Amino acid sequence: MMRRLALIFLFCLSAFGAPASEWADTDAERVRQLQSRALSDDTAWMLLESLTTEVGARMPGTPGDALGVAWAKSRLNALGFDRVWTEPVTFPYWERNAESARLVQPRMQELAVTALGGSPGTGGALTAEVVHFEDLAALEAAAPAELAGKIAYIGKRMARSRDGSGYGETVPGRSRGPFVAASKGALALVIRSVGTDDDRLPHTGTMSTSEPGERVPSAAISNPDADILEGLLRRGPVSLELNLDCGFKGEATSYNVIGEFAGREGNGEFVAVGGHLDSWDLGTGAVDDGAGVAVTIAAARLVQQLPERPLRGVRVVLFANEEQGIYGAKAYAEKHAAELARHVLGAEADLGSGRIFRFRSRVAAEAEARVALLEQWLAPLRIPWQRDQPAWGGADFGQMRRLGMPVIDLNHDASQYFDLHHSANDTLDKVDPSDLQYNVAAYATLIYWAAETQVAFGPVAPSP
Amino acid sequence: MMRRLALIFLFCLSAFGAPASEWADTDAERVRQLQSRALSDDTAWMLLESLTTEVGARMPGTPGDALGVAWAKSRLNALGFDRVWTEPVTFPYWERNAESARLVQPRMQELAVTALGGSPGTGGALTAEVVHFEDLAALEAAAPAELAGKIAYIGKRMARSRDGSGYGETVPGRSRGPFVAASKGALALVIRSVGTDDDRLPHTGTMSTSEPGERVPSAAISNPDADILEGLLRRGPVSLELNLDCGFKGEATSYNVIGEFAGREGNGEFVAVGGHLDSWDLGTGAVDDGAGVAVTIAAARLVQQLPERPLRGVRVVLFANEEQGIYGAKAYAEKHAAELARHVLGAEADLGSGRIFRFRSRVAAEAEARVALLEQWLAPLRIPWQRDQPAWGGADFGQMRRLGMPVIDLNHDASQYFDLHHSANDTLDKVDPSDLQYNVAAYATLIYWAAETQVAFGPVAPSP
Repeated sequence: MMRRLALIFLFCLSAFGAPASEWADTDAERVRQLQSRALSDDTAWMLLESLTTEVGARMPGTPGDALGVAWAKSRLNALGFDRVWTEPVTFPYWERNAESARLVQPRMQELAVTALGGSPGTGGALTAEVVHFEDLAALEAAAPAELAGKIAYIGKRMARSRDGSGYGETVPGRSRGPFVAASKGALALVIRSVGTDDDRLPHTGTMSTSEPGERVPSAAISNPDADILEGLLRRGPVSLELNLDCGFKGEATSYNVIGEFAGREGNGEFVAVGGHLDSWDLGTGAVDDGAGVAVTIAAARLVQQLPERPLRGVRVVLFANEEQGIYGAKAYAEKHAAELARHVLGAEADLGSGRIFRFRSRVAAEAEARVALLEQWLAPLRIPWQRDQPAWGGADFGQMRRLGMPVIDLNHDASQYFDLHHSANDTLDKVDPSDLQYNVAAYATLIYWAAETQVAFGPVAPSP
Repeated sequence: MMRRLALIFLFCLSAFGAPASEWADTDAERVRQLQSRALSDDTAWMLLESLTTEVGARMPGTPGDALGVAWAKSRLNALGFDRVWTEPVTFPYWERNAESARLVQPRMQELAVTALGGSPGTGGALTAEVVHFEDLAALEAAAPAELAGKIAYIGKRMARSRDGSGYGETVPGRSRGPFVAASKGALALVIRSVGTDDDRLPHTGTMSTSEPGERVPSAAISNPDADILEGLLRRGPVSLELNLDCGFKGEATSYNVIGEFAGREGNGEFVAVGGHLDSWDLGTGAVDDGAGVAVTIAAARLVQQLPERPLRGVRVVLFANEEQGIYGAKAYAEKHAAELARHVLGAEADLGSGRIFRFRSRVAAEAEARVALLEQWLAPLRIPWQRDQPAWGGADFGQMRRLGMPVIDLNHDASQYFDLHHSANDTLDKVDPSDLQYNVAAYATLIYWAAETQVAFGPVAPSP
């Protein structure tokens, strides 16, 4: 036994670059099996190809959204989940009918434009001079007189990075800008798209659902269009015609779709994974968040195909309407708050299809030794534990994390993600099938690690 | 003298990798000066930034086209050209008013679509089943019954290559497809865009102006949309709704804009360089062909700023309406046929802003020794002479080459060009200023080489 442990130790040192501690023989073998199978399994790709081809865009409350719900139920059943069900989610229905923008002075230029989610319409064409602000802070500092009867423009450009941190730095202009512009008396807001590409494709995204006060009609233009606008603004006054036919129209109901495999212990505990089933309307929701849906379904199934089921079960939650206000996840948290303890751990995939390159953890201190084991198991995939930042659980499972659910974040390489995110370019051709397999290997490892143990990962203190 | 030649020989062998022949001291010094200045000169960038920002798209016969002509005259005058003039060019005016396409069966999907230049409109929405053909040859082989009342779709994808050769292999579907589809009784033609990118931005381009017979309404969809369409066609029947509001509407007149520096010999001979001033309407015509316009103007001026003017003059020709039928170049060739002998050499820049990586030649056999010298002068820029293929002169100067004008092609690296070509993505942000400088260095070298000599590059036999 010592000799075998020593061999495993040497193997781990050489292959994984980390010392072994409690790799049980069976666990080591099963993790190797899972990772090996994941790297040659095309289930995630087949799911994503099917979802983006047969369903396409799934904007909350639209026929595509309903088609997506039917697709998800049918696929989870076909893949042999023990139990598949839906839970209704009701939300304000926002529709996009038509949108256009063009420069009219000093010259004509059609702009690639898209309304922000939650924007009211302009009620026909609105033409006004554009006032340029570097960022939201500059708009907040503007004197109201500067903006009366004008269109505010925020030019801040999102920076590219592997962890996607440029998004959080730039998105307040989209989220809060429409309210700040209204408070300054502007007629409308136009922002440079929150995206890292240079394509003539604007990036949509919702404005805040909690900001108080009025909002103005608001839209994003593509990065190249923003460059042209700024080039002309450097030369003199620019007038823009904006025509947004969009707005809220009653309520709609969609569904969280949930599939579950029971564990062999039968005590009702489960590992919760998933992503959101809805998408924006401009693309087909391949990287946001078809990839997360496909990867977590495929990983849960792969764990289930082991010679025996793990102790705990696995639940895959495909959330409704994340994009326009995290409505599905809020409904889920409200409905399942009393079952918090059964959710032994949550992990959400919602940062595209780039390869997972590190993970973060938010578990009870007593469970940290088990997290060190996860790091060893993920070492062959070169996914180290980033210890200096806690996991947040994602936008969706973050709602359960707030209540105290332990979470792990498997962080995707997001270097390319924000080229595509919320734009018409979010389509299947951007996804590398081998990246999906890699991410299935990581999720399958995580699920097995959290399910094949009696370790309690909580309680974790509730956090905002 | 032998010793000096030997030294130059050694210098050339070491620095340029090619044997020296007739580098005169002054020439060597001036070429070095020209290349060095070009590599730090921002004239081309300033011109291109101004053209794409202040003028934008320049579709033949539109207000943007007229603005472009005014811009070009004003810039050539401001840059000190001895003589600047315009020559009218009249052509059928084709307009694009609105265009849309969507899949309606088996599901809804808006497609990124653009009408092909020369397409008639659909006269409202046209809905029909789509029949898939791999390429134009497959469409030509189709039985008419297969297509009656249907929309033909050509799925051939353009291959990426440094020399852009995939374009010629794919473009017949766009050029002749509308006529072949009509001959088979199809209602309309949809093609996969002739482009190498994966953006949801279709590539327009004109259909043939010389093909006999009727044409059907024709449009291109983006590569990702073509992928979605083909994914659904693999599953079963697909119906598409196409709505093109476009077509010919009388005639329009634009202008070739010409600027000239006289040579110091004063015999009226000149080197002719240039590109086309018009563009498609979807982008701002930055790489097609703003870059060629900017580079050739900047190079001609740089040669003119030498301590003394070269023997021969330089003429920059900015052609009207290349995109919709090479009308400007045909008018130029007709008007200037009698002055063929004064055009000692022509070179056209119309393949984007990628770095020039080789050149080709079509000159009289007696002038080939001089071409070998050009190869030496271009060696510091790593631009070798490709001897196994003759130059063709470009679409525009090709009209004069047909009459017998000697030509040199400076071939751009076109690896990225067809990502942008004829699409909304043809904007300034795609251009690297240092690439423009590099290409100005190549053109300045070429102009000096052809102008500072008495060598006759012609006569060259007329060729189709």
